[in-house]
Amino acid sequence: MVDNKVKEGENILIYASKGKNWLVKATHGAKVHTHLGYIELSEVIGKEYGEVFETNLGAKMAVLRPYLIDYVMKSSRTTQIVYPKDVGLIILETGLSPGATVIEAGTGSGALTTALANFVRPDGHVFTYEMRPEFIEVAEKNLKRSSLRDFVTIKNKDASMGFDEKDVDIAVIDVGDPWRLASPAYNALKGGGAIAAILPTVNQAEKLAIELHKLGFINVHTVELLLRNIEVREGMSRPSTRMIAHTAYLMFARKTILKS
Amino acid sequence: MVDNKVKEGENILIYASKGKNWLVKATHGAKVHTHLGYIELSEVIGKEYGEVFETNLGAKMAVLRPYLIDYVMKSSRTTQIVYPKDVGLIILETGLSPGATVIEAGTGSGALTTALANFVRPDGHVFTYEMRPEFIEVAEKNLKRSSLRDFVTIKNKDASMGFDEKDVDIAVIDVGDPWRLASPAYNALKGGGAIAAILPTVNQAEKLAIELHKLGFINVHTVELLLRNIEVREGMSRPSTRMIAHTAYLMFARKTILKS
Amino acid sequence: MVDNKVKEGENILIYASKGKNWLVKATHGAKVHTHLGYIELSEVIGKEYGEVFETNLGAKMAVLRPYLIDYVMKSSRTTQIVYPKDVGLIILETGLSPGATVIEAGTGSGALTTALANFVRPDGHVFTYEMRPEFIEVAEKNLKRSSLRDFVTIKNKDASMGFDEKDVDIAVIDVGDPWRLASPAYNALKGGGAIAAILPTVNQAEKLAIELHKLGFINVHTVELLLRNIEVREGMSRPSTRMIAHTAYLMFARKTILKS
Amino acid sequence: MVDNKVKEGENILIYASKGKNWLVKATHGAKVHTHLGYIELSEVIGKEYGEVFETNLGAKMAVLRPYLIDYVMKSSRTTQIVYPKDVGLIILETGLSPGATVIEAGTGSGALTTALANFVRPDGHVFTYEMRPEFIEVAEKNLKRSSLRDFVTIKNKDASMGFDEKDVDIAVIDVGDPWRLASPAYNALKGGGAIAAILPTVNQAEKLAIELHKLGFINVHTVELLLRNIEVREGMSRPSTRMIAHTAYLMFARKTILKS
Repeated sequence: MVDNKVKEGENILIYASKGKNWLVKATHGAKVHTHLGYIELSEVIGKEYGEVFETNLGAKMAVLRPYLIDYVMKSSRTTQIVYPKDVGLIILETGLSPGATVIEAGTGSGALTTALANFVRPDGHVFTYEMRPEFIEVAEKNLKRSSLRDFVTIKNKDASMGFDEKDVDIAVIDVGDPWRLASPAYNALKGGGAIAAILPTVNQAEKLAIELHKLGFINVHTVELLLRNIEVREGMSRPSTRMIAHTAYLMFARKTILKS
Repeated sequence: MVDNKVKEGENILIYASKGKNWLVKATHGAKVHTHLGYIELSEVIGKEYGEVFETNLGAKMAVLRPYLIDYVMKSSRTTQIVYPKDVGLIILETGLSPGATVIEAGTGSGALTTALANFVRPDGHVFTYEMRPEFIEVAEKNLKRSSLRDFVTIKNKDASMGFDEKDVDIAVIDVGDPWRLASPAYNALKGGGAIAAILPTVNQAEKLAIELHKLGFINVHTVELLLRNIEVREGMSRPSTRMIAHTAYLMFARKTILKS
Repeated sequence: MVDNKVKEGENILIYASKGKNWLVKATHGAKVHTHLGYIELSEVIGKEYGEVFETNLGAKMAVLRPYLIDYVMKSSRTTQIVYPKDVGLIILETGLSPGATVIEAGTGSGALTTALANFVRPDGHVFTYEMRPEFIEVAEKNLKRSSLRDFVTIKNKDASMGFDEKDVDIAVIDVGDPWRLASPAYNALKGGGAIAAILPTVNQAEKLAIELHKLGFINVHTVELLLRNIEVREGMSRPSTRMIAHTAYLMFARKTILKS
Repeated sequence: MVDNKVKEGENILIYASKGKNWLVKATHGAKVHTHLGYIELSEVIGKEYGEVFETNLGAKMAVLRPYLIDYVMKSSRTTQIVYPKDVGLIILETGLSPGATVIEAGTGSGALTTALANFVRPDGHVFTYEMRPEFIEVAEKNLKRSSLRDFVTIKNKDASMGFDEKDVDIAVIDVGDPWRLASPAYNALKGGGAIAAILPTVNQAEKLAIELHKLGFINVHTVELLLRNIEVREGMSRPSTRMIAHTAYLMFARKTILKS
């Protein structure tokens, strides 16, 4: 069995508390400076994952293996990221599974791309389209950090002119004018393939739904997910006072084909 | 490239509308009887996935490849199932990925087990514990139908007496007395490993949180997800009148270890 | 001090349980038949409000003074009623107080009218407009039952052609084409007066907001209220499984005037 | 008819935008300084309510008659205020109406007291209990500003030792240990009277529910209200990104009496 120890070069999560944790590369000689003191990464290398240690000021921290969710939430952001609650449902509703071929319009900072890539491993692939070179640069960086770069092809192209791929399993749309992507997605999808769209406004949802129905997509349905944090404490449990009330509507549908 | 046609013996989803669709095995000679007429499955075999066809009464339907979500939602149920919104977040929050070893207390009808199995493929495994033989029987059936049976070991044992496995990546708790599973899960998890619990009541959440903190779990946090269906129709869009308002609270945490 | 006893002719609420309660007039000789036995109303007359008594089959019930909310929820309905959660906020946001003059477009079954009338007492008045005579008939009946008929004038007229009243404090809009009422409401309101609209769809909200901004209304804001029932039980508290997820969006604004 | 003009000594709301508005007393010689310039209140006196005017820097503002909701939201706060969404439902669920006698435990900064007082006018009364003199001082100030002071008696007493009043219509509980108020409230209420409690945590709700059931209250039910702001803009409508996710649970019940 492989041991569970921190190796030089691995990404690690130094965890002090919910809002105070850092995703860094375990590098000999490097230090992480925090408001609670600094950490010599040389001393973290060789520790067991989960182990609790102290900063030079005696503050307790633990070293954790970062999860996909950490990469997603700590992406360098040039655009609004897709939240884990939404990523999770997109995975389920599109039938995303190991081996799938996925196209994505709107790479943005690559947060959703990273999640898609994670779950098509080891033999699937994500082709993602982005028109703005400065976004691609950020997405590249985020994908490399999560070691999922090999599962993704990034194209600096306007997907509304058509995707290069054919017979793909899943199309994911995360652009401002999603209705312009409906027909290109239809053409790229295989029969029965799934489309998912991330839609901040109701109006985008209306326009996309009209196009999807026209093209013969079925099971067109739209949801929104509200995530509420609950403060669970003995004898004084209650929902948190504030929450993110809206990220985006999610629309899902599946392609049908008519044989003459 | 593999073709995209329905083969004898495959599970298929016959889709008429959101509430009217059937998950069946494509078998020569079998018929599916619906309120809209019947379908000769022999005629569906060989069609392309996504293809639209007609029942003997001329009603239009499409044949789709079932997704994990269809298996989950159409599980034979002896217990409350875990909803896709919750499954998706559990996957993200626990870092579930291909290759993971997962333990689960409370197989129930196996809906969540099915989802976990799907995402540990091809080289991970789920060990699930269930005390009631009649639940195991149903779970067996559900797992077989989704072709994920090979990735799961079902044990008719009380997990609160201890899991057999060691150094597992993830522990999932879906039983009525989750606080009794905290210590067994701690012992089975590897350093930094994740625990997730499905908790219908606030009181279960309080009791489990107390145990998790005692044991040295960190990043103990609790959420609930509300899924709202949106009726998107040109010029008359609105949330649906009714919704499922509560399934369960979800609690997540990660194991730390203290070296002397 | 006035006694607290049930008098002949008063409306009373016979309360068995949350879903089982009846709003009736206390009449000598009348009986209320329930699945738990019948009640002789002669025997209820003279009881103290709040008193527990038994049906002929020994089932325990209590006699309560009905509240406005009971009249609202037990209105004869020809149309969707306005829910108490929404009524309450409309009262607060429009500054509804004793003495106010209110106009309402869309009487429907009079549920909201009843609430408005209750809170303008003793010296305010509600003028309500309804085009369909069959709705007026129902509204009449509901208003009479709650003894608030004297505070309301019902007009069988199209309010989009203009309200007869001038310098009113509050305008309430509950019709399918609310944007057509914006200008008539502006003309009828006094400077600084409040408008409130009940809007099932986002599209109605958009169209009305455009008109309100054009006319110079300020503080135009839109909300929705979600009411969640909580099942509070010792050691097993949780939100109810199902809820009404959407009734209507509520839009509020105040009239400004420009002096040349 | 009374004119609709600003008089010396009236409270007025100077409204620039949703987040920028000021509740002041119209006083000759006084100035209101804002980030958009200053306003000479002498120039506002005599204007019509709703009228738009300019600051010395030319910024447009309107003068509005303040509503109860403005007094509530702009209360000097020493404690968490009760939000309008919750106030509105409390009014409806307790049958609060002109003429009612109300007792309140936990005056706090008097925001809810103000609302209760507004709706018992002209011939009802609110008796409110508060143990901390520094809260009473703030509540006094808030009540005076809204001109509702005459409808309220403030007592610097521990209501859990018993209310002085008998046969009251409504009891409102807004303290940290609400279960200690159940019995005193029962004793003070008349038969069929209503109790309402504001409960930040689930645990408070559980403890209070147990007491209410013991005492013979019926229709004990608990809700929470979520208020979501909707950004309604032509072609780009969506819920606001953030919201207040929890203020308090609201519990309601009615007193029954057993005659021997």
